[in-house]
Amino acid sequence: MNKVDLLRAFNVNIDLAVEAHELLRGEAQAEIPGVSMEEEQLEHATVTTIKILNEQGVQEMGRPIGTYITIDVPEVHTNNYLIHREITKTLADKLTELMSLPEDASILLVGLGNWNATPDALGPQVIEKSLVTRHLFNYTPEELRGKLRRVSAIAPGVLGITGIETAEIIRGIVEHVKPDLVIAIDALAAGSLERIGTSIQISDTGIAPGGGVGNRRAAINQETLGCRVIAIGLPTVMNAAIIANNCLEALLNELKTSPSLYQLYKEFNPKAFEQILEKALYPYTNNLMVTPKEIDSLIETTARIIAGALGMSLHPGISAEEYQMYMQ
Amino acid sequence: MNKVDLLRAFNVNIDLAVEAHELLRGEAQAEIPGVSMEEEQLEHATVTTIKILNEQGVQEMGRPIGTYITIDVPEVHTNNYLIHREITKTLADKLTELMSLPEDASILLVGLGNWNATPDALGPQVIEKSLVTRHLFNYTPEELRGKLRRVSAIAPGVLGITGIETAEIIRGIVEHVKPDLVIAIDALAAGSLERIGTSIQISDTGIAPGGGVGNRRAAINQETLGCRVIAIGLPTVMNAAIIANNCLEALLNELKTSPSLYQLYKEFNPKAFEQILEKALYPYTNNLMVTPKEIDSLIETTARIIAGALGMSLHPGISAEEYQMYMQ
Amino acid sequence: MNKVDLLRAFNVNIDLAVEAHELLRGEAQAEIPGVSMEEEQLEHATVTTIKILNEQGVQEMGRPIGTYITIDVPEVHTNNYLIHREITKTLADKLTELMSLPEDASILLVGLGNWNATPDALGPQVIEKSLVTRHLFNYTPEELRGKLRRVSAIAPGVLGITGIETAEIIRGIVEHVKPDLVIAIDALAAGSLERIGTSIQISDTGIAPGGGVGNRRAAINQETLGCRVIAIGLPTVMNAAIIANNCLEALLNELKTSPSLYQLYKEFNPKAFEQILEKALYPYTNNLMVTPKEIDSLIETTARIIAGALGMSLHPGISAEEYQMYMQ
Amino acid sequence: MNKVDLLRAFNVNIDLAVEAHELLRGEAQAEIPGVSMEEEQLEHATVTTIKILNEQGVQEMGRPIGTYITIDVPEVHTNNYLIHREITKTLADKLTELMSLPEDASILLVGLGNWNATPDALGPQVIEKSLVTRHLFNYTPEELRGKLRRVSAIAPGVLGITGIETAEIIRGIVEHVKPDLVIAIDALAAGSLERIGTSIQISDTGIAPGGGVGNRRAAINQETLGCRVIAIGLPTVMNAAIIANNCLEALLNELKTSPSLYQLYKEFNPKAFEQILEKALYPYTNNLMVTPKEIDSLIETTARIIAGALGMSLHPGISAEEYQMYMQ
Repeated sequence: MNKVDLLRAFNVNIDLAVEAHELLRGEAQAEIPGVSMEEEQLEHATVTTIKILNEQGVQEMGRPIGTYITIDVPEVHTNNYLIHREITKTLADKLTELMSLPEDASILLVGLGNWNATPDALGPQVIEKSLVTRHLFNYTPEELRGKLRRVSAIAPGVLGITGIETAEIIRGIVEHVKPDLVIAIDALAAGSLERIGTSIQISDTGIAPGGGVGNRRAAINQETLGCRVIAIGLPTVMNAAIIANNCLEALLNELKTSPSLYQLYKEFNPKAFEQILEKALYPYTNNLMVTPKEIDSLIETTARIIAGALGMSLHPGISAEEYQMYMQ
Repeated sequence: MNKVDLLRAFNVNIDLAVEAHELLRGEAQAEIPGVSMEEEQLEHATVTTIKILNEQGVQEMGRPIGTYITIDVPEVHTNNYLIHREITKTLADKLTELMSLPEDASILLVGLGNWNATPDALGPQVIEKSLVTRHLFNYTPEELRGKLRRVSAIAPGVLGITGIETAEIIRGIVEHVKPDLVIAIDALAAGSLERIGTSIQISDTGIAPGGGVGNRRAAINQETLGCRVIAIGLPTVMNAAIIANNCLEALLNELKTSPSLYQLYKEFNPKAFEQILEKALYPYTNNLMVTPKEIDSLIETTARIIAGALGMSLHPGISAEEYQMYMQ
Repeated sequence: MNKVDLLRAFNVNIDLAVEAHELLRGEAQAEIPGVSMEEEQLEHATVTTIKILNEQGVQEMGRPIGTYITIDVPEVHTNNYLIHREITKTLADKLTELMSLPEDASILLVGLGNWNATPDALGPQVIEKSLVTRHLFNYTPEELRGKLRRVSAIAPGVLGITGIETAEIIRGIVEHVKPDLVIAIDALAAGSLERIGTSIQISDTGIAPGGGVGNRRAAINQETLGCRVIAIGLPTVMNAAIIANNCLEALLNELKTSPSLYQLYKEFNPKAFEQILEKALYPYTNNLMVTPKEIDSLIETTARIIAGALGMSLHPGISAEEYQMYMQ
Repeated sequence: MNKVDLLRAFNVNIDLAVEAHELLRGEAQAEIPGVSMEEEQLEHATVTTIKILNEQGVQEMGRPIGTYITIDVPEVHTNNYLIHREITKTLADKLTELMSLPEDASILLVGLGNWNATPDALGPQVIEKSLVTRHLFNYTPEELRGKLRRVSAIAPGVLGITGIETAEIIRGIVEHVKPDLVIAIDALAAGSLERIGTSIQISDTGIAPGGGVGNRRAAINQETLGCRVIAIGLPTVMNAAIIANNCLEALLNELKTSPSLYQLYKEFNPKAFEQILEKALYPYTNNLMVTPKEIDSLIETTARIIAGALGMSLHPGISAEEYQMYMQ
């Protein structure tokens, strides 16, 4: 079954706009109306900027008008500090651009996800490593006063922990804290294994219903919160249905190489295909995740990079090295 | 210096109404106008019910009109399961009485305090051990449906972690969740060492400004939240100034035993007294806490008792034994 | 590619003896020489006892002589307390039988695995929930004295955390603590999705080199430790290569249904098969895990069941209900 | 009662050699035979080096022959990154000097203490923030190979958690890992409040029986482990008996100011003094700790400084800034 059908049949989310775009374009690399794409090649990163420009783009992409920047950093796996520093810097630059914050802006960081399940703990770990400044000027590291923006932060937990929709909690807090900007950090589901841990997406559209890894139904965006929302996401898992589908696709492509087999391929019943998948995932359906064994260090490393980039872009008055010291 | 003066001079909170009442009554055991007190002796607990009846009582006691029940359970230290079960049962009964909840009430549990500092982690630990039911009827343990009230729960963290006043966070959430009742659980500061870990206070007045262990300034009560608030508190620390003061008091009482020394005592400059205390606590003032070495197991035990009692009183349809199994 | 070849090609472990046995028997359900198998059907569990009887069985099964009991408890997912209690009881009975401990035996519990990665945290969580008694008779809950065996417990971490082979740490400790029995608890990798969270294996052979989820190379058994070793394992993940393989197998079986396709099937190059798998798992090889989204609650539930069963079988003088209260 | 008597009567440990030395010298500042002392004044630190030179010194000081260096860094409380970096550097220099390690030495870090009780969690937190390298050269950050010593690390827990004497666990591990040097990090008890969080003691004598915060009875030193042991300690608490005693002392000193009162002072019964203390600490005796409210951030800050200094002195090939990035 082709991937788009699979995603629909198994109710699998593709969280990265860049992947949704690739899928839509297909092998033919068709232009998608209402959507623009630009690529920039940096030393340790490829930056892809997708803009959904109008209602037609919204229909095609199934997500709101806005800018979706993906920073691909395959070398995140190398465990090389100098490269991590470069990645952090690149992410900070892109964030700064996308946020275009006034100097006196106040910011609420929201770490989405479940701290009890490592693959879903990215958001809470970024929060833990972030410098919170809103409540103090007496407590602020003294040499930093005057260089910091006002930052508050919360990891609200997930529905299964609190019994409350995460969006409800955030809305309630935003109404009292009244930040100029909310930045929501979340673990995503990838559409391909290469992107796990290596594709950081930032967007100015918030988090839409249906996105995210599972149970976050209500939107977290300007419309629901009344202030701008930047979302930062990184895939940490992939739905197992995709791996199953990829195998079947590859096998069928293999069969296609001879004309008689191609005939066969065409006759092959797509419904059978779906049944094979269902059986392969049994007794699970769309709630089975693929994740690398080293998920704990992957989350640790990427949470550090994201928290570092947040610090650099939110508090430009302090150096990267200084910020490093204040991270927990 | 007498204890009341000390508390004022060093800005030390007495969180338990029963201790504030004792202090006011003094050695003469005077009646306090506008305040009633009753004592009940159970097998493993002494229950003291203090009611602040009118504005005069409010003035005297420095806290709002309402009922303050203290359950003294010295045997909490014995580590005996049968006794712990009795204590849990007694606390559940008193909570049920104080809450007088309609069957279909929805409840928000709020665990106040700092999960990173063991003596302040009681509230968050109770939340972790509590059964949350609001979000589900599909997820509820199937044999329990129909026996449960709707419970949601949050540990909002402290100002130093989030940069946000805890009361602001709670107010925001309450406006969206609209519970019928908020139950706030918090670690308190005792006025005497015997009460650490052994005096559980429940009250229907919420948590007033100035109460609590330190930085929780804004009130969490019916007036600010718009719904009833039950507070559950247990002292886990005592301000070190009290221990210092107790020593000095005892020494001076010793001196008083001879007439000539009594003369001396009267001449002794109260200002000097304060200076001695200041010096003894230097370089700290009112932020030095006394806590037993076994604070980790004390918190673990009492969090289990409180969470168990909450379960029994919120979900009377299930047995104590069953509830035990669902606690984490 | 057939499963046995796959496991070899991708270096995938099958940790459950019952699954290794099934694979060996194949569709023909052949008897395996040197291996016996018995099944027992209980209300909430199926118990399969496999015995490797002699050197021939060792060669066939690739694991040491001894008894491997698997308790299949599909209803662990139901979240029903009464069923969980039954499962706990059944596991306790089987453990008691397998251990056949003298009354005054001393036991060292070892929780293998990585507390930072939820799917690998089963062992450490069982340790956290277990009652440790060796160091005390002064600290023991007083009503329990005389009913308890001497139990010590450690979660030694993994190589990536300590820099030390886990087996080295355990050997060192055993030489000093000199327990009569070591019980090692570990998260396993399943060979089929149905077994994740539902098949508890206990064996009297310890943990052999190559078993376990990844990096635990040195054996933890009577030979290396000098005392008996019981292993308790539960699959929490499955290698993603198996899911990929299952899909391909299913598709080929489908093709086989017509004679002409069967011809095709026979011609299909097994090497191509392997390449498809490799590509489907790229850039990972054998370090990609499949795990359910609810892994956190699955680990929580099963750790509670295992810790409960350990308590009941190690301390038969106390009731299940009492033990429940002492668990953390 | 004078402090030396108090410590004896209440079985209170003074963990810092520099404090034991001060006490011995008394107000008269007497020289202690067999003990040398040197002071060095740095910009952000005072370094005091005490050497116990011979058996006479051992008798006087109640601790083994060796070097005890205390680095007093009151500005640790300032929360100023530049100062923290200087402190880290100073500690690294002193450690390097004291360790005088060959280039190819292998080191085992041991984090003593209880991770569940914040004031006792210093050791485990240093371990968590330390770079472990022994097990890898494949996993080592690639740009670091050749610049690193082989470091392994363990936080063995406390007796109440494992049921095993910590020294037993460490001895077992050392026999298998065979490090050239063990570095044990531990939270200490101070003799005065000013030293909480600000006096870092390093010594080459290991940890002697009776030292430490409570239950660590067996020695961790060259004699018991068969390899050199460096101990790093930092007071995080003070026994509450000392605060009580200090108040009484101060009051009596005040009384002494007039001749008639001095007479009184001399007549005052020292036994009464002890009774007052006992009553002031009731129902506790020597297990009541004083700790600042901000203990969580104090532990976080000092664990970071100690882990940073360990990294700099163990891996001199990498820069402080680089090391910072590898800390967790």
